[in-house]
Amino acid sequence: MSFELTKSFVQELEERIENGQITEVVAQLQDEHAADIAELLEQLEVHHAAEIMNYLDDELGAETLMEVDEDLRAELLKDYSNEEIESVVDNLDSDDAADILGELPEATKREVLNNMEDTEQAKKIAVLLSHAEDTAGSLMATELVKVQQTWSVMQCVREMRRQAENVEEVYAVYVVDENDILLGALSLKKLLTTSTKTPVSEIFDDKIKSVTTVTDAEEVAQLMQKYNLYSMPVTDDLGKLLGRITMDDVVDVITEEAEKDYNLASGLTEEVEDKDSVFTVTKIRLPWLLVGLFGGLATAMVIGQNESRISALPQLVFFMPLIAAMGGNVGVQSSAIVVRALSNNTFGKNSLKRLSKEFTVGLVNGLICALVLFGVGSIIGYETNILLTVSIALVSVVMFASLFGTLVPLTLDKMKIDPAVATGPFVTTSNDVVSLFIYFYIGRLLIGF
Amino acid sequence: MSFELTKSFVQELEERIENGQITEVVAQLQDEHAADIAELLEQLEVHHAAEIMNYLDDELGAETLMEVDEDLRAELLKDYSNEEIESVVDNLDSDDAADILGELPEATKREVLNNMEDTEQAKKIAVLLSHAEDTAGSLMATELVKVQQTWSVMQCVREMRRQAENVEEVYAVYVVDENDILLGALSLKKLLTTSTKTPVSEIFDDKIKSVTTVTDAEEVAQLMQKYNLYSMPVTDDLGKLLGRITMDDVVDVITEEAEKDYNLASGLTEEVEDKDSVFTVTKIRLPWLLVGLFGGLATAMVIGQNESRISALPQLVFFMPLIAAMGGNVGVQSSAIVVRALSNNTFGKNSLKRLSKEFTVGLVNGLICALVLFGVGSIIGYETNILLTVSIALVSVVMFASLFGTLVPLTLDKMKIDPAVATGPFVTTSNDVVSLFIYFYIGRLLIGF
Repeated sequence: MSFELTKSFVQELEERIENGQITEVVAQLQDEHAADIAELLEQLEVHHAAEIMNYLDDELGAETLMEVDEDLRAELLKDYSNEEIESVVDNLDSDDAADILGELPEATKREVLNNMEDTEQAKKIAVLLSHAEDTAGSLMATELVKVQQTWSVMQCVREMRRQAENVEEVYAVYVVDENDILLGALSLKKLLTTSTKTPVSEIFDDKIKSVTTVTDAEEVAQLMQKYNLYSMPVTDDLGKLLGRITMDDVVDVITEEAEKDYNLASGLTEEVEDKDSVFTVTKIRLPWLLVGLFGGLATAMVIGQNESRISALPQLVFFMPLIAAMGGNVGVQSSAIVVRALSNNTFGKNSLKRLSKEFTVGLVNGLICALVLFGVGSIIGYETNILLTVSIALVSVVMFASLFGTLVPLTLDKMKIDPAVATGPFVTTSNDVVSLFIYFYIGRLLIGF
Repeated sequence: MSFELTKSFVQELEERIENGQITEVVAQLQDEHAADIAELLEQLEVHHAAEIMNYLDDELGAETLMEVDEDLRAELLKDYSNEEIESVVDNLDSDDAADILGELPEATKREVLNNMEDTEQAKKIAVLLSHAEDTAGSLMATELVKVQQTWSVMQCVREMRRQAENVEEVYAVYVVDENDILLGALSLKKLLTTSTKTPVSEIFDDKIKSVTTVTDAEEVAQLMQKYNLYSMPVTDDLGKLLGRITMDDVVDVITEEAEKDYNLASGLTEEVEDKDSVFTVTKIRLPWLLVGLFGGLATAMVIGQNESRISALPQLVFFMPLIAAMGGNVGVQSSAIVVRALSNNTFGKNSLKRLSKEFTVGLVNGLICALVLFGVGSIIGYETNILLTVSIALVSVVMFASLFGTLVPLTLDKMKIDPAVATGPFVTTSNDVVSLFIYFYIGRLLIGF
């Protein structure tokens, strides 16, 4: 892009718009990529952004609208007449058009679709809108190039020329039979390097992957990633070719999935964005904090049960946070490993073997930590019977947390709940409570108070 | 794929190999995708996997070798003669060939490159090997299709036919001048829909993005994701076209980056895989546990300083883990938000504004949590002066942790350390120590012990 999004650039731009220089500003932007313009609009005040959108030419405007984030898009679309929305939809591929319409109120959506001049396109978009979220159907676009297996390469190229007029870019050439049943794909290389008289049936690849409209979006992402595919054809249950999904849509799915896991592991209910208000951020952060708070109250009650012992042996108190923290850390590690394995589909069939390995790892980690603690604690000068209690409790807590951290995401997964929830404060908090319970129990057994 | 990777399938296959039916086994696999065969090999014992590799045809074998994970590839390559490695390299694109050679000992690498029949290709691979890890140069392949701007569409197609023989698949057609300086790209659609006499100079897109060999891999990924690019040309500093990076390589970069952040947030030093040994897993998990352990010892010392107060007011002890846990949770949330913003490049220029917002969010969250704690605590029946101390400490700790969790990743980033380190046990542990310090300090001020 020709500009850098510095604070002074944004300020200067806003001033120029205020001073009525909007046409100059837009003329400067006209050559930029929609993604860059979108980034700029997100930095401006909404009414300035809306003014720029007013002056951008139809195609660039539609593309820019696709690139801005959902909140700003909703703000901008508020001022659009139905005719303007129609023009936006006309300038987009079917998948993007469906995405935008899907964000609009039911009545507007219906009116725009009914008024569209290209009724074929309107029907296609309506079908796309009917697919459930996070399925292949909701990701696909209907614009594609397809050829018949009976054609020659020459015929193919001629037909592709005709079809290409209607699609923004050619990503793949699909081969179908007379009933539009997907048979395979024709690589551009084959098309270039074969004699023009060769029939398509002799050169197309019939071993291609495809999904149906109801395939889970995450599964589509995994398949495309595994097989390094740039474009994935989507069919109905009979194998009829309905659309295609391209890698850029799938990259968004992959990124979102990773962000979801990361946010959960960090105790956030969803993605926090820079421009979110204090209220929004609080709403995203508070739920897991309250989980932690109630966990803390439960911990307080566990400790309360041991009040008399604490007065008798206050040194035992010193190591409470250590025990709780170690339980929490180990539990999160174990959960995270299971969550990763589940989402990569690399989780072995043998849960028992996994648990026993986790048990061994927990034992080894616990023993090493206990030894370090005992050694360093002795040097600092803590009493031996305290250190012995803490060390034994530490081994027990680490082993418990390993198993607990493994079992929780597995159980959630079986219950069809996102196992990534387990890596958040939930496991940490439960581990706090149980860890301290174990700690005092072992204290009672060993020191006998 | 035609098989499912069940335990019984793998067992049966191993038995068949043991019984000398290797040719039948390989015949069955010959039609599978390399990625599926790789997945299977990873489940087999290494000597069985090696036997299958022996019998796979050269091209499929080379592709499968690219798909198996690094550890298994190293195991398999141990038994390869230099001639066999040469054959593998011959059957791969330059970027994959460079990746495999890069994993081999220096001497083997050199011998294979020196003995390659295609000395041009050997030179290209040697150049690729010279690029630093995680740069565009290390991701790119040199196989591409390029045309001169002075040619007509007809000439283009003829030249593309010739060049396509040498590349596995045509992803993009680049336009260069007589010195191979990158000028732009020619879309397949334009090529299909323009008269064959049109000169390339009239129809190519001169506003394409490109990177140089030293561009950071993550930046390449961000650019390709932002602009929805399937292929990114790589040039030298003079603009000479050297190679191209395709989306599948970039998806791996995106995924790895997300995994790295996730692992750090979970207290793991790197990705844990299902087949990792207990020793490996311990090595990955122990470092952050030890950080937590020493943090716990520091906490023990902070508490130890307050021993006399604890004996006098044991109820204060009940809420120690609550205070520590809340500090930890809030700190991780704040860090995670900063880490995400930094890696998405959405971090606003104005750090002060961000800190003041974080301060407000911390205050709001802290006040709400304190109110809940005070209310629920009163119902349970804790003493008011204890609850007051805990509540005030909670607000202070939450606010401190918000700011600390924001500042740590920012500071790390300034020091060119991966800020994601901050989301791990580091912030939690530091917060534990400081939180309890604040807690006892406020206790001393308020209750005056």
